[in-house]
Amino acid sequence: MKFLIIGGDAAGMSAASRAKRNMPDLDVTVLEMTRDVSYSACGMPYNIAVPGKAIEDLVVRQADVFRKKQGIDLLTGHRVETIFPMKKKVEGVTDSGKKFKFPYDKLLIATGGAPIVPDLPGFDLPGVLALKSLDHGRKIKAYIDSHNVKKAVIIGMGYIGLEMSESLRTRSIEVSMVKPNPRFLPWMTEKLSEEVQKEVKANGVNIHKGHAVQKIEPANSGLAVVCEDLTLDADIVIVAIGISPNSECAIDAGLETGIKKAISVDRNLKTSDENIYAAGDCADAYHVVTGEKTWIPLALRANRAGWAVADNVCGGHKQLDGVAGTSVFKVFELQVARTGLTPKEAENFGFDPVSVIIKSRSRAHAHPGSTTIHVHLIGDKKTGRLLGAQMVGKEGVAHRINAAAVALHVKMTVEKFAQTDLAYAPPFSPVWDPLLTAANQLLKRM
Amino acid sequence: MKFLIIGGDAAGMSAASRAKRNMPDLDVTVLEMTRDVSYSACGMPYNIAVPGKAIEDLVVRQADVFRKKQGIDLLTGHRVETIFPMKKKVEGVTDSGKKFKFPYDKLLIATGGAPIVPDLPGFDLPGVLALKSLDHGRKIKAYIDSHNVKKAVIIGMGYIGLEMSESLRTRSIEVSMVKPNPRFLPWMTEKLSEEVQKEVKANGVNIHKGHAVQKIEPANSGLAVVCEDLTLDADIVIVAIGISPNSECAIDAGLETGIKKAISVDRNLKTSDENIYAAGDCADAYHVVTGEKTWIPLALRANRAGWAVADNVCGGHKQLDGVAGTSVFKVFELQVARTGLTPKEAENFGFDPVSVIIKSRSRAHAHPGSTTIHVHLIGDKKTGRLLGAQMVGKEGVAHRINAAAVALHVKMTVEKFAQTDLAYAPPFSPVWDPLLTAANQLLKRM
Repeated sequence: MKFLIIGGDAAGMSAASRAKRNMPDLDVTVLEMTRDVSYSACGMPYNIAVPGKAIEDLVVRQADVFRKKQGIDLLTGHRVETIFPMKKKVEGVTDSGKKFKFPYDKLLIATGGAPIVPDLPGFDLPGVLALKSLDHGRKIKAYIDSHNVKKAVIIGMGYIGLEMSESLRTRSIEVSMVKPNPRFLPWMTEKLSEEVQKEVKANGVNIHKGHAVQKIEPANSGLAVVCEDLTLDADIVIVAIGISPNSECAIDAGLETGIKKAISVDRNLKTSDENIYAAGDCADAYHVVTGEKTWIPLALRANRAGWAVADNVCGGHKQLDGVAGTSVFKVFELQVARTGLTPKEAENFGFDPVSVIIKSRSRAHAHPGSTTIHVHLIGDKKTGRLLGAQMVGKEGVAHRINAAAVALHVKMTVEKFAQTDLAYAPPFSPVWDPLLTAANQLLKRM
Repeated sequence: MKFLIIGGDAAGMSAASRAKRNMPDLDVTVLEMTRDVSYSACGMPYNIAVPGKAIEDLVVRQADVFRKKQGIDLLTGHRVETIFPMKKKVEGVTDSGKKFKFPYDKLLIATGGAPIVPDLPGFDLPGVLALKSLDHGRKIKAYIDSHNVKKAVIIGMGYIGLEMSESLRTRSIEVSMVKPNPRFLPWMTEKLSEEVQKEVKANGVNIHKGHAVQKIEPANSGLAVVCEDLTLDADIVIVAIGISPNSECAIDAGLETGIKKAISVDRNLKTSDENIYAAGDCADAYHVVTGEKTWIPLALRANRAGWAVADNVCGGHKQLDGVAGTSVFKVFELQVARTGLTPKEAENFGFDPVSVIIKSRSRAHAHPGSTTIHVHLIGDKKTGRLLGAQMVGKEGVAHRINAAAVALHVKMTVEKFAQTDLAYAPPFSPVWDPLLTAANQLLKRM
């Protein structure tokens, strides 16, 4: 049986490796359009922060290991252009211009996502760079080194933009961030969002909210990011306004797509075609809170989906529960985490959300070094269910959010969650964990 | 209505405060045998570590605040000696020798626990001290200061002993630990237990396992802890071999007791007497994994039980799910956590336990500063349920354990747990959280 995979990063290589482990005799071919496979894209801001550190340090497993030790036919520089579902084959072209075609019995589309770049003047100028693939990271790093970058503008204030702001500040680069939305983290409750903004500003980042970029122009020796009432000079411009799924091939092949044109898959990761799977940032997923489809491109679910596809290709019946929308990022000294729905999302899905915001401590009463933890907890008045959590703090946030995430997977009520036996010791928590304090407060409003 | 409470620490004062908030007109009296109320006992090792820091810093709320602001009749130095359930009254004696009696409509026994001190020669010598109440902490601190303590022996290697070893090493005191059991942390799987022992030894603590103490003798200017084939000199001896519930009064009053003679309570915290509740270290609890009674004296469940009693005394019907056996402690640079059952406990309760031990990282591939996290995960072959987890590591252990704890509360299967959407960002975790890696491994054995 021929198992063909388009895309050689998280979902694709996870699927390839696991399929070979499951069935050593399986014929597994991976077609990757870039020259890079199996790297930690999320690590790029931290790598870029360190001058001289090779971006290739982020490669998790070398292509040759996949080829020689695992027996995977891994072809880089192979861009698939067309999928023929009826003929069960794909066609494309290599980066040296050579055409190729491959047949398959089972196909996995793991083409990932691509950064959104607005169709505005100047976004194609040298020094205007996005960050998604390893090659993006390589280019940003090379540009900073070769152009003696002293000033950067980041367009967008999502987690990649924020991680990049820290990365560039670490290199003593002046950073300005700009976006049209007047709210800093629009998905986060105002109070917590302000805490994050305070931290970013305290680290010397200039925040310009409510400014839509109109164009980028060459200026002086660098670039000018032009808004209606604001112009920002820069040696480099990072475009970080989000990503979109690479689903063009799938759409052309007639596969169903859903939210944001991500490829629709069922709980087995199967697309609308019997022999085609999709996994990772190009595909959608079920949300465990709403039971509906969602598109949240993150690394864990890409790896997990890759494994599930491999199991199913090899005759298994692996079904994925879906995602809870759990994420965390670090920005300077702050940990920022969320899981589940925001009150607005909850409303949109027919819940009757009620929420609390509490302020607690990272350590016990009288324990030295304690810092503030803010928790926003959201419940559903109708069913009593916990719907979501958001947290901000200097310590004890990144892993604490997982307790709420597990609760969401089982549709736990706030009342039940408030009864959970969470760990306590003075260096790590107050007796009542901040999540429990929030749950106790939330209960009173439900 | 008269609500009488015996004991003024975690469970007792939580109950008193909440009862007054629930029903401001309720007549609430608290009888505390010591002069201290409402303090963070768990904080004592960290306070003792700092010379000159008042032990009273650990008091969470002053007695006068309870009295004047909350209207609680709080009487310290009042030791209850007898409970008369038929007459609904208690009798006792103050620390100045005065007899007293109090009637009640509802009684809460929140007498806590007492350190176990072996009935062996020399355990009553000056300088042989246990640690449970604030006064114990006060005495240890005063003894160290007044006796120029340079050498300490800690009898017992549980978490209080280990926290004290760090505390004393911080003060540059030479520390030896001794106990009869040849295993370091007998409840922990060998591999993880060794990691903890390594850390403790690396910090200059002398570990003497497999030595039963026979007596303590005065020696030179200090003390000698004498085992059959080992004698340890000390300026101070800390006895930390565990605690037992203070349930004598309850037993004398004819109340039912269970495991370790802890007072038996139902899910409403009611004892075998209709008008008497018990909460905190003196009472037992249900274990959410086994559904059976257990006795795990920890701070969170004491506070939680105190609240539940207050709600029920005030006409509510609060039922507690019980404990998952979640705990965490810090020893030097290590975080040591557990929740649920050990394989041995699982066997005793009729499960068919199977477990894995995995080694993972605290941060992502290629992220600087990563340290090792060891996870021991236990599942039940028969039902597929997750039964317990143990973790050891320098970061990311203390709160991570909570995800497993929540899973235990809902009797989640390992398969379902392996599907949970846990947070990932390079500074905080590998893509696959160590708990998920362990769950994936464990699944293969189930």
